[in-house]
Amino acid sequence: MTSPQLYAPEWQVQTWFNSDRPLTLSSLRGRVGVFVAFQVLCPKSIAVAIPQALRVFDTFEPKDVAVVGLHATFEHHAAISIPVLKAFIHEYRLKFPIALDQPNSASPIPVTMDRYQMRGTPSLVLIDRLGVIRKHSFGAVDDLRTGAEIGALIQEPASVAALDRSSAA
Amino acid sequence: MTSPQLYAPEWQVQTWFNSDRPLTLSSLRGRVGVFVAFQVLCPKSIAVAIPQALRVFDTFEPKDVAVVGLHATFEHHAAISIPVLKAFIHEYRLKFPIALDQPNSASPIPVTMDRYQMRGTPSLVLIDRLGVIRKHSFGAVDDLRTGAEIGALIQEPASVAALDRSSAA
Amino acid sequence: MTSPQLYAPEWQVQTWFNSDRPLTLSSLRGRVGVFVAFQVLCPKSIAVAIPQALRVFDTFEPKDVAVVGLHATFEHHAAISIPVLKAFIHEYRLKFPIALDQPNSASPIPVTMDRYQMRGTPSLVLIDRLGVIRKHSFGAVDDLRTGAEIGALIQEPASVAALDRSSAA
Amino acid sequence: MTSPQLYAPEWQVQTWFNSDRPLTLSSLRGRVGVFVAFQVLCPKSIAVAIPQALRVFDTFEPKDVAVVGLHATFEHHAAISIPVLKAFIHEYRLKFPIALDQPNSASPIPVTMDRYQMRGTPSLVLIDRLGVIRKHSFGAVDDLRTGAEIGALIQEPASVAALDRSSAA
Repeated sequence: MTSPQLYAPEWQVQTWFNSDRPLTLSSLRGRVGVFVAFQVLCPKSIAVAIPQALRVFDTFEPKDVAVVGLHATFEHHAAISIPVLKAFIHEYRLKFPIALDQPNSASPIPVTMDRYQMRGTPSLVLIDRLGVIRKHSFGAVDDLRTGAEIGALIQEPASVAALDRSSAA
Repeated sequence: MTSPQLYAPEWQVQTWFNSDRPLTLSSLRGRVGVFVAFQVLCPKSIAVAIPQALRVFDTFEPKDVAVVGLHATFEHHAAISIPVLKAFIHEYRLKFPIALDQPNSASPIPVTMDRYQMRGTPSLVLIDRLGVIRKHSFGAVDDLRTGAEIGALIQEPASVAALDRSSAA
Repeated sequence: MTSPQLYAPEWQVQTWFNSDRPLTLSSLRGRVGVFVAFQVLCPKSIAVAIPQALRVFDTFEPKDVAVVGLHATFEHHAAISIPVLKAFIHEYRLKFPIALDQPNSASPIPVTMDRYQMRGTPSLVLIDRLGVIRKHSFGAVDDLRTGAEIGALIQEPASVAALDRSSAA
Repeated sequence: MTSPQLYAPEWQVQTWFNSDRPLTLSSLRGRVGVFVAFQVLCPKSIAVAIPQALRVFDTFEPKDVAVVGLHATFEHHAAISIPVLKAFIHEYRLKFPIALDQPNSASPIPVTMDRYQMRGTPSLVLIDRLGVIRKHSFGAVDDLRTGAEIGALIQEPASVAALDRSSAA
């Protein structure tokens, strides 16, 4: 059985975009979570991670996969503002929910980025239907492997009850 | 239960490369089969399908996934020869088994290509662990979706016995 | 002889980056000018025009070609600030001079963008050694043609005196 | 003045494709020659050099630039045949003249490849309007630089007489 500490930590968010209310991890429970941390001024985020997030969003069914973006402002704090993110989301035609990470008064690393111990942007976190982190990578990741990982997670039971029934079989 | 006619038809092969003996579908049973039909003079085969086949071969474990190439000579018959294929396989550093489809005396379409009713090259056929065709596409297919399909098939039971146990659960 | 109205209009600039003093067109006279208008939140600017500007900067000698960027803030005015541009220039490792276009109190179109009658971003303007606009394009332009145009302009005389001598020959 | 030994050596050709009669270098005189040596089973030739040759052919005017392909069969001799080249030219929709290099009875290196002292495929040779080799490179070459070189050569005088007049000026 997976140990409790591998459950994805809750997000702490300053502002949500593309969502009329704050999202919590429990609201995604039962779906595979594809959690993409990025920065609008990080070249690899823009050239690689955002286009890949768009492909994931377009490829899978919303009932199976929830794509969520996290803008992790860990540098260039003076440059990033809500209007920057609004314009960015508009120009890149992003439709999935995007969180602006909660600033941390004691550190340049914002709260959610710190909780997930991300090494920078872009970072990709795959969360299974039960809320457990199954993959956490930093930098570019290729589509074939990422597709395989998401495809495998979709096949897993959507609840502990279903998991128990399956194990018992 | 899957009807018998969806089981992948057997290959009929003139020559095998990268395999010291002829392969049969039953020898792959228990693994996911990724079957890539191509032609060395077909631009999309070379620009898209062969590089993708190499990525599939590099990404998945041989115990889970068997990549097999099929050279389907349905046109330019006078151009294709065993030395052409040998040189091609050497230059592109292909390591997976590759079959040269059996010519058909009554038609330009070779035997295996005809049995699978392929529309041209490149074609991609995904075969599950039980030997059933689960996807058959013509032309370029994207890595993310293909990865997801292979990743999902890997999760499936490797035998009918296991399948029955799982269904009973 | 080229008519005077084709001479490149002077830039009007709020702030220069990567230059310790304001640049004027006359300071580039004698060199080919490659003038790239972009926006940090414009996807095609970032995916196509900025990488191409970097390649132009790396390919040609500074004595022959002057690459100059212009950030034309014609939309998303609230998003763009000097810290955004500083962070962008740092992250994309841009070494050529970049101008932040002068805002226009009477219009969303900034002054230089308006003088050049640009249709949007990215825009590319090629200016010959005598200061005359020789090409003005909107959107992505391919490297081969752009290289050919710059390569041809480099071959031209660097002054009217030289031009007259050449014509007289 | 350029020394005579830099003049491009004449081609020796087994078969011409896309040309109703054998081409000679003198028939190109007055135009810039873009001479692309390739092999149909050489991955970099197919992925990089042939697409670039097509772009050169599409970008420049035939009155200025002559694109000529050379199939240099220096390995895999048993694989290459006239039907292979015909099918290749058909499938890749090549419209420019292509020469099959003359085999050399004493060496695996064919005659023209040897005369030009090419190191392998792909190789690119730029020949000016007077027939002098101005660039000879092995491997992939980028579009921007290649465009600049062709663009500069187009600007040069088309005859020695014109050259002398220009130098005298």
